[in-house]
Amino acid sequence: MTYCVGLRLNRGMVFMSDTRTNAGVDNFSTTRKMFTFHVEGERMITIMTAGNLATTQALISLLEERSKATSDRDPTILRVPSMFQVARLIGSTLREIISESTAEGATSDAGFRATVIVGGQIKGGPPRLFLIYPEGNFIEATDDTPFFQIGETKYGKPILVRRYDPEMSFSEAVKLLLVSFDSTVKANLSVGLPFDLQTYEIDTFRVHKQIRIEQDDPTYQSISTGWGDALRAAFDLLPSYEL
Amino acid sequence: MTYCVGLRLNRGMVFMSDTRTNAGVDNFSTTRKMFTFHVEGERMITIMTAGNLATTQALISLLEERSKATSDRDPTILRVPSMFQVARLIGSTLREIISESTAEGATSDAGFRATVIVGGQIKGGPPRLFLIYPEGNFIEATDDTPFFQIGETKYGKPILVRRYDPEMSFSEAVKLLLVSFDSTVKANLSVGLPFDLQTYEIDTFRVHKQIRIEQDDPTYQSISTGWGDALRAAFDLLPSYEL
Repeated sequence: MTYCVGLRLNRGMVFMSDTRTNAGVDNFSTTRKMFTFHVEGERMITIMTAGNLATTQALISLLEERSKATSDRDPTILRVPSMFQVARLIGSTLREIISESTAEGATSDAGFRATVIVGGQIKGGPPRLFLIYPEGNFIEATDDTPFFQIGETKYGKPILVRRYDPEMSFSEAVKLLLVSFDSTVKANLSVGLPFDLQTYEIDTFRVHKQIRIEQDDPTYQSISTGWGDALRAAFDLLPSYEL
Repeated sequence: MTYCVGLRLNRGMVFMSDTRTNAGVDNFSTTRKMFTFHVEGERMITIMTAGNLATTQALISLLEERSKATSDRDPTILRVPSMFQVARLIGSTLREIISESTAEGATSDAGFRATVIVGGQIKGGPPRLFLIYPEGNFIEATDDTPFFQIGETKYGKPILVRRYDPEMSFSEAVKLLLVSFDSTVKANLSVGLPFDLQTYEIDTFRVHKQIRIEQDDPTYQSISTGWGDALRAAFDLLPSYEL
């Protein structure tokens, strides 16, 4: 599995992804699942992927190759005029890769499916955040649903639902994501450190911060330990159920 | 879905199950998923079920019918000599029902599978807790894995892992289960109130407490609201991730 979250804030966006990839418990390694397409001062696009690694690597490679081709006829992720068109382009590329794998040749029980979160901003438009399905269609984050999760989403959802606030600072949002990721890592072997973190500040069209958070990161360590203690303390304050 | 948890404590066992059953979001209702087989002073057995409702109802009906049959030749849940034999009996009955459904006739995408938690004590033996798979085989709770969850298990697992303690009182354990169930209910429509609760005190061979916890239960309400507040307070005490 995988765990990635994209969060829309009033001041921008925060993206976090884990780096564990596995084909069975005896075959796992570390791989980046967060990718950036960027034209300084004009557009800033962040993509996170979950699912079949062959599919997601092919997706990123195709997007990259096509963005370097000289032909003006094809739309590329660095040229399409809006974030909506970016999502359409990724969706159609993803569908193309999956249908190629599925059409002929060996099939895989695990399937060739992948899911993508893409967020960013292109000059002239607002920042937008999308969740793209393996079928190529997609949905957009709204004020009611201000974040998307892909991969192993369940363990880390309760704290996101309860503590998310669009007015959060970037530091608070990263803390929230670290708690959510920590709960997931503790419950599921298929999600693992290090985490990739990226923040985007509205109307800047460049990376705000980009950090790889390792297991021994002192703030992560104190959040991870502190959260267990804080949970226990919070629990003890609740009334008991008298029988 | 469903959410049921069976918890082994030093002083006994605690069982909790939700009551929502659904076939699609437009067809849901309330049904009991916790059943007791009991011979005063001799044995106390609690069963909780998750999965296809036709399968689980057939399982309970068969166990009940057979326990009332006069023939001495068949083992029944009220006569088998040990909790291990209880688990074997339930496992074989479950396998029999599922294989009958699967062998012929219409098939169902959803499948006919079901999973069962059974716990209890029979005079002369210790209290034991088992998780029975649709295949009819089963595993037992140990000191390392002192509880079982079935159904929609992920949302409510982090707090169980972090706060369970075999020395807990029944009241504390019920509080823990209510927090776990509350997190699940808030995240997944297929789990719903009321909850059925049963506690068993070691070497008593009778029900200790049996309660249906409704939505308007004041302690549940204060735990549900209090937990959200406590989580937020605990979160605010953690260090921020400085960017």
